[in-house]
Amino acid sequence: MRTDGRTNDQLRPIKITRCFTRTPAGSVLWEQGNTVVLCTAAISPELPPWMKDDRPGGWITAEYVMLPASTPQRKPWPKIGHTDSRGTEIQRLIGRAVRAAIDLSKIGPHTIALDCQVLQADGGTRTASICAAYVALVDAVRKLPAKILAPPRPIAGPLPARYDPIHYNPAKAIVDPVSAVSVGIIDGEVRLDLAYDDDSRAAVDMNIAYTAGGKFVEIQGSAENGEGFGHPQLLELVELATCGCRQIAQQQASALAVAKDGSGEIP
Amino acid sequence: MRTDGRTNDQLRPIKITRCFTRTPAGSVLWEQGNTVVLCTAAISPELPPWMKDDRPGGWITAEYVMLPASTPQRKPWPKIGHTDSRGTEIQRLIGRAVRAAIDLSKIGPHTIALDCQVLQADGGTRTASICAAYVALVDAVRKLPAKILAPPRPIAGPLPARYDPIHYNPAKAIVDPVSAVSVGIIDGEVRLDLAYDDDSRAAVDMNIAYTAGGKFVEIQGSAENGEGFGHPQLLELVELATCGCRQIAQQQASALAVAKDGSGEIP
Amino acid sequence: MRTDGRTNDQLRPIKITRCFTRTPAGSVLWEQGNTVVLCTAAISPELPPWMKDDRPGGWITAEYVMLPASTPQRKPWPKIGHTDSRGTEIQRLIGRAVRAAIDLSKIGPHTIALDCQVLQADGGTRTASICAAYVALVDAVRKLPAKILAPPRPIAGPLPARYDPIHYNPAKAIVDPVSAVSVGIIDGEVRLDLAYDDDSRAAVDMNIAYTAGGKFVEIQGSAENGEGFGHPQLLELVELATCGCRQIAQQQASALAVAKDGSGEIP
Amino acid sequence: MRTDGRTNDQLRPIKITRCFTRTPAGSVLWEQGNTVVLCTAAISPELPPWMKDDRPGGWITAEYVMLPASTPQRKPWPKIGHTDSRGTEIQRLIGRAVRAAIDLSKIGPHTIALDCQVLQADGGTRTASICAAYVALVDAVRKLPAKILAPPRPIAGPLPARYDPIHYNPAKAIVDPVSAVSVGIIDGEVRLDLAYDDDSRAAVDMNIAYTAGGKFVEIQGSAENGEGFGHPQLLELVELATCGCRQIAQQQASALAVAKDGSGEIP
Amino acid sequence: MRTDGRTNDQLRPIKITRCFTRTPAGSVLWEQGNTVVLCTAAISPELPPWMKDDRPGGWITAEYVMLPASTPQRKPWPKIGHTDSRGTEIQRLIGRAVRAAIDLSKIGPHTIALDCQVLQADGGTRTASICAAYVALVDAVRKLPAKILAPPRPIAGPLPARYDPIHYNPAKAIVDPVSAVSVGIIDGEVRLDLAYDDDSRAAVDMNIAYTAGGKFVEIQGSAENGEGFGHPQLLELVELATCGCRQIAQQQASALAVAKDGSGEIP
Amino acid sequence: MRTDGRTNDQLRPIKITRCFTRTPAGSVLWEQGNTVVLCTAAISPELPPWMKDDRPGGWITAEYVMLPASTPQRKPWPKIGHTDSRGTEIQRLIGRAVRAAIDLSKIGPHTIALDCQVLQADGGTRTASICAAYVALVDAVRKLPAKILAPPRPIAGPLPARYDPIHYNPAKAIVDPVSAVSVGIIDGEVRLDLAYDDDSRAAVDMNIAYTAGGKFVEIQGSAENGEGFGHPQLLELVELATCGCRQIAQQQASALAVAKDGSGEIP
Repeated sequence: MRTDGRTNDQLRPIKITRCFTRTPAGSVLWEQGNTVVLCTAAISPELPPWMKDDRPGGWITAEYVMLPASTPQRKPWPKIGHTDSRGTEIQRLIGRAVRAAIDLSKIGPHTIALDCQVLQADGGTRTASICAAYVALVDAVRKLPAKILAPPRPIAGPLPARYDPIHYNPAKAIVDPVSAVSVGIIDGEVRLDLAYDDDSRAAVDMNIAYTAGGKFVEIQGSAENGEGFGHPQLLELVELATCGCRQIAQQQASALAVAKDGSGEIP
Repeated sequence: MRTDGRTNDQLRPIKITRCFTRTPAGSVLWEQGNTVVLCTAAISPELPPWMKDDRPGGWITAEYVMLPASTPQRKPWPKIGHTDSRGTEIQRLIGRAVRAAIDLSKIGPHTIALDCQVLQADGGTRTASICAAYVALVDAVRKLPAKILAPPRPIAGPLPARYDPIHYNPAKAIVDPVSAVSVGIIDGEVRLDLAYDDDSRAAVDMNIAYTAGGKFVEIQGSAENGEGFGHPQLLELVELATCGCRQIAQQQASALAVAKDGSGEIP
Repeated sequence: MRTDGRTNDQLRPIKITRCFTRTPAGSVLWEQGNTVVLCTAAISPELPPWMKDDRPGGWITAEYVMLPASTPQRKPWPKIGHTDSRGTEIQRLIGRAVRAAIDLSKIGPHTIALDCQVLQADGGTRTASICAAYVALVDAVRKLPAKILAPPRPIAGPLPARYDPIHYNPAKAIVDPVSAVSVGIIDGEVRLDLAYDDDSRAAVDMNIAYTAGGKFVEIQGSAENGEGFGHPQLLELVELATCGCRQIAQQQASALAVAKDGSGEIP
Repeated sequence: MRTDGRTNDQLRPIKITRCFTRTPAGSVLWEQGNTVVLCTAAISPELPPWMKDDRPGGWITAEYVMLPASTPQRKPWPKIGHTDSRGTEIQRLIGRAVRAAIDLSKIGPHTIALDCQVLQADGGTRTASICAAYVALVDAVRKLPAKILAPPRPIAGPLPARYDPIHYNPAKAIVDPVSAVSVGIIDGEVRLDLAYDDDSRAAVDMNIAYTAGGKFVEIQGSAENGEGFGHPQLLELVELATCGCRQIAQQQASALAVAKDGSGEIP
Repeated sequence: MRTDGRTNDQLRPIKITRCFTRTPAGSVLWEQGNTVVLCTAAISPELPPWMKDDRPGGWITAEYVMLPASTPQRKPWPKIGHTDSRGTEIQRLIGRAVRAAIDLSKIGPHTIALDCQVLQADGGTRTASICAAYVALVDAVRKLPAKILAPPRPIAGPLPARYDPIHYNPAKAIVDPVSAVSVGIIDGEVRLDLAYDDDSRAAVDMNIAYTAGGKFVEIQGSAENGEGFGHPQLLELVELATCGCRQIAQQQASALAVAKDGSGEIP
Repeated sequence: MRTDGRTNDQLRPIKITRCFTRTPAGSVLWEQGNTVVLCTAAISPELPPWMKDDRPGGWITAEYVMLPASTPQRKPWPKIGHTDSRGTEIQRLIGRAVRAAIDLSKIGPHTIALDCQVLQADGGTRTASICAAYVALVDAVRKLPAKILAPPRPIAGPLPARYDPIHYNPAKAIVDPVSAVSVGIIDGEVRLDLAYDDDSRAAVDMNIAYTAGGKFVEIQGSAENGEGFGHPQLLELVELATCGCRQIAQQQASALAVAKDGSGEIP
């Protein structure tokens, strides 16, 4: 029995609040047990400088910060930048995972910035961030304009592909919903959705992002404390994680099936 | 009539949620119209290095950040540090204002770190931060231990004053509750509690922190757009602000009169 | 009696040296008692990127640094940037105060950079900086070209307002001279122009910027040591400060009435 | 057929030069096709501040930098720090993987710093770094002193565990040799040891660190270009990677079986 | 007798490996006794923003870093930037010295970036870097295109001088080969090519860059330990250094006389 | 004839104002033609951490900044740190040159921080800084206490050498006064003390620091514009520089022969 009474294959209770703040296009408060993440999705017309003219569509960025008081012992802000090396690793993971859910060529000349702020940390903040970011992304995509906007100012030469209406189709942009969960091995047992109590004692810690269509998009597993894990354990971990992701995907879908954000009919 | 239908001397509706997160000693979600601030208060036994041994009690720090999506146009994190020059100015203001509410000599060898995170910005974020920080501070002070703790390790020489029980009395530490509000002159009219619509057009913008005991602790007034203001306007602004602070102080007191955070009886 | 023998309503002696260095358009050595500030005003044709094309005129920036040996105990340069959080707060104050003296729309496409360097610090460095910056600004404005310059290179589309001669009129740009002074409460007494001896013991510390036309442009008052101040004290502080500002304004005007900088006749 | 003529399950030729430089305890030039990495291992008696007194043994750090001219288009040094967000993610991976090979409690009060410098980048630099770092680590461990050194200065209180000879046994510190390799899916084919030509077109990119004892220590797989991969592909990737790691492990062992570094007999 | 058995006027053995890596246009491993420097030369079409349109030709930059394990006690990377104040001083020296060897007006619109990485440091790393950088530069110049390239995109107005074929002549760009060496006074003796043993005890330390044509391009001499040196010693140091430079120049020329890098015939 | 009418071997007029500010122990305004440098010398009891216990005496640091308006086109402060790569190179030069004037073992446990601030730049700022720093240093040394101070707190074990009175003798600390000047070759002519007009056109630029006792302590000569210089020119430059240094040394000595700083009799 785990310290919070769950069985090894049981998720923590999840509560999804869309439109938690009103400023950005998407804003999701994701509560999973005692882990609380606020993920916002903001649309902007600025694209990264490396995007070439023959590439249709836009881009998605992700950032991840832990607020100082999200951990029992307050963690000061880093002196340079707003995140540290662990945060850097995590925000790269979030970005890759969420980009797997979307066909970027269909969203036109927009950057959607996903900001994941951890308000309270009790394990699994990176996978909770991916799940919340997906929901916020869907809300943001629903708020993209019905017709592609013209370039802000006249462009010399051929129209860059990102302004070509032929590619633009926000309603078809979400191609495969993504969710994510952590699994691990604690005291020789394979467990789902590790809270801090489990996480801090785990011999193996694995984060998996998996789509509703049954595809892996990220697998990141690390042996801790110099233990390593064999083939059978790998299979068991993967099985348990995909099972957890499927349950989370249902909750994401239910939350998104409500027109709570006033964006009109649900596609 | 103002764009949100208020009269010139009317505050926006305020909603105070204590214990919004559970990790820190104090955690207040402060909603004032569309401005939303999360202020946490974390207790730590580490003191700033400049505190001398003959000085009893502890210290209070304040930090202020706007989350990137708190504004309609997303504001990226600064590259160096977590806040910019405006934020630096504001967090110094918050720190000074809140320290006026407390007798630091009574809280023993503790630093209370007040972190103000703006989740949604619609004007008045610095005064909302002061008000929220005061409530979070009271919750944190209530969670200080009943008896002063001994130093973490033996100290050579005389006991520093901060460990001397004679000074320690958290129950008497809060000496004069503090609240704050903005006032300004818009279209020649003196107005209370400026939302962004007012703030962006104000000829004068003033923030006042005022105690329940009727003392000013901070007055910061600036003429915008090169207008300046005369003596009569100064008096009018100050009068309206003190009136607003008194109303806010009542709401702070009501919120704090409930034993919602499980800290036992209310002092 | 104060430690330097002044009465409570007495300013320190002020010495204003214009053209202290010859490189920049304005260069003022401001000595007020033992506080010494060198403020330079440099004209450049580069404008901040946020200035829109329909906005006539230019911009003014301000920076404030304390040289390391300006204080009795040498203060090392900060590792990041050239100023620290206190300096950041102060340079924002200086910029706002000085911009109140000028009609920016009349100075054409120029940025005037005001650099305030504290050579010796004995209290009141931020108000001395404002006063010196105003004098340096006037010298710089006098050196603006008689006719507006054409854009450095041909511009496609309509001429931005900042190049339109209709707005350009440096001789009328200074609209209301500004001066500033500190006041405070020490040992229960309201005092003018605090030197470090007073400042370090003050219960209330207030800086006021006030125009020759009798308008407040900045009021920044802080209670120190958790004391707070009431309405009568506020009125007394404001009264004393405006009185001090009027005296300083006369000295600024006298200094500027001399064609010492060789810029031709005084407007 | 791949652009360099290899079959899908074929490694690039590997050349391992130990003692490439003489200053550090370990120094390995790892050439794998056109990828060249110099990994050094330096021993120091300083331990990270978070190591507690009851923890025996030492620590291992890893850093990863790409020299500016390691890529066809020169990549400038980052302005802050010596590495960027991708480098940060990679050096965390290297550290975790190599720490799996060693029982840190046996190396006494030493930090071994592994610095991986990419001299030439043609894909697979992070896995080459892990492989090279392992070899450099073994060389460094062989140079640890035969007997544990006494603390540099007398310690008050009980002897910290890291100075206790009972734990010290460098000859037994290496518990399970580690190697690593990349695999991926290109044009629907699962391929081993991706050079840049493959890597840049891969739909899935996976890095696996695997021990000689048949344990996984790191699995990091990412779908690129929004494709995802299913269970059968996951199994195929993992199978190919373990096969590649076994071959590399033999080459590491052969290289280490020679007393080339003059450290005496091979354990 | 010196600790490594050399006479006072004897250089350490030098080994020059061109094309050590294949990515950049020039890549030289320079071994001088136990000092090992890898210098790469990378060609790029981007020029520094301060280069004016009427200036023909390109630019050369130089950077110098010591890898952390290049010194017996590992030196951590600096937190800001990739080099420290000593490295900054050195890379300015390298840039000036190498630019003396070349007629920049003949290399067309190219920047050649010289990156000097110290792999092993035993004294004389800055002069070894100059020597290696010269060889790498020659290799890079040989790889410049036979005909000047057209601008990447059409240019409005007159063609900038750097694209004018009249100036372009890489084969004539190298005008005077440069080499460099250190000299110093140790125990009253003037010595050539100081290894660390000498360098750390030197009363005077001087670095001289000298051309094959018999011109000085850099002289940097410092008295250490407050000793100073007189005119006769200055002359003796300069004489010994020019003698050393001449020998090094021969080795550079021999190394460059081989068509090892496959760039075709040697000019 | 030079643009300012001087002959090739003529110095610009020099004006030395000691005690320009009163806060630090030494404060020198050095005017040399249109170049103006303020150099302060501040004494502190903190020593750099690398100073060992068996080393008697203290340390001297030097910093060099150009104020933004010291140049005709204002130069913004760098974003990181207070100085840039050129400034870094210069402050290392100043430190080395001034340390040659003093026997550090005689000044007891003190750091003297020399801050050179360029108020106006017209060539020769680094050599003016060295000259001013020497004068400020002498004033600071004269203000060292007559008897060595005891350590600030009791020290366990043997007394570090820096507190041993046997070494302490500030009156004998200055061992050989140092001055510095620039020389160069312009239009084929060897010239002394280059102002900006000369400096910007120089084919060779050389800075020499030379002691009153006739010793070189720094020689830094660079060929500009790829010209190089031969042996005869080197001798001529050195000759002219030593001649200039001797003249400057007289002016330094005269300035220091006055008890203007109120420090009592001149030693």
